[in-house]
Amino acid sequence: MPYVNIKITREGATAAQKAALIKGATQLLVDVLGKNPATTVVVVEEIETDNWGIGGESITVRRQAGR
Amino acid sequence: MPYVNIKITREGATAAQKAALIKGATQLLVDVLGKNPATTVVVVEEIETDNWGIGGESITVRRQAGR
Amino acid sequence: MPYVNIKITREGATAAQKAALIKGATQLLVDVLGKNPATTVVVVEEIETDNWGIGGESITVRRQAGR
Amino acid sequence: MPYVNIKITREGATAAQKAALIKGATQLLVDVLGKNPATTVVVVEEIETDNWGIGGESITVRRQAGR
Amino acid sequence: MPYVNIKITREGATAAQKAALIKGATQLLVDVLGKNPATTVVVVEEIETDNWGIGGESITVRRQAGR
Amino acid sequence: MPYVNIKITREGATAAQKAALIKGATQLLVDVLGKNPATTVVVVEEIETDNWGIGGESITVRRQAGR
Repeated sequence: MPYVNIKITREGATAAQKAALIKGATQLLVDVLGKNPATTVVVVEEIETDNWGIGGESITVRRQAGR
Repeated sequence: MPYVNIKITREGATAAQKAALIKGATQLLVDVLGKNPATTVVVVEEIETDNWGIGGESITVRRQAGR
Repeated sequence: MPYVNIKITREGATAAQKAALIKGATQLLVDVLGKNPATTVVVVEEIETDNWGIGGESITVRRQAGR
Repeated sequence: MPYVNIKITREGATAAQKAALIKGATQLLVDVLGKNPATTVVVVEEIETDNWGIGGESITVRRQAGR
Repeated sequence: MPYVNIKITREGATAAQKAALIKGATQLLVDVLGKNPATTVVVVEEIETDNWGIGGESITVRRQAGR
Repeated sequence: MPYVNIKITREGATAAQKAALIKGATQLLVDVLGKNPATTVVVVEEIETDNWGIGGESITVRRQAGR
């Protein structure tokens, strides 16, 4: 019954890519810890680049600066 | 001062239903642990069905398959 | 398939009280949104009073001050 | 490598304000614990006022009631 | 710069298993979305079985009942 | 009524340092967005170094390797 929360910036991830994250994260818990996939929950959250910071500045600013 | 985070799929929950979740979760903390409702915070997050997975597949796919 | 995360201060909640939180939160999602209890996950996290703040001060300090 | 998650109601915070939250939270971790800002992540999440509750009622209702 | 939070029950996961979760989740983000592993953060949280519920009952109770 | 969650590695942060995080994060929300400190919640979570990964490896391993 694990719960996995994946936060990424909202930059065009497709439904197929998000399905791959869900499938891959679930399989990881099965492979490493033998967890039951039927009750493994994965939630992907997409965050605006204005709202995500690293190094003290937003991803929006970092993208503009080529970082 | 509890904090409750409720994550559900975004499938048309109304303002009245979300108000009922807020009221009910707050009351639960009062009833079970005697917490002060005035500082009990409840945050409801609605997640796209493409972004929620269980059993290794997204809710979008599960809905289409009738699961 | 909702996911509920309840954060409270670590101040002696018993297993029975935590079971009541799990049961009550699950029932709330069933009652308000018709969710399936079999895939409703509730996680209770207990946080040291030094690590929880409200009003800019820790719960430890507030308890000592009788607030 | 701290991770800071700031949840606020969605009520018109500007990109500049969110940049200030990112900068300020990162600096706080540097000042208090000597953390490396380069790997400090800050995520700001904006929540609809219908979805945020305190005192058992939503912020939408509280705003309407002048609370 | 993704952030991955994996919550599991505290039932004896070893440091090697947790390292495998960290490595696998990081690689998943690289493979699916081309993310930079250097700024991908993975946090594993282990939750007491009394504090984790599914189907309205705690994992402690489910284990005792053989579910 | 913001909610701030600060996750750091468990490496000996003192009560005074955690109080400084609580005070500083609360003040940040007051300064930047004019939020009410009385209902601003800050939760600090300390995570074992085995359970925190960046760059695909745990902080325990990184510390041992001098990274």
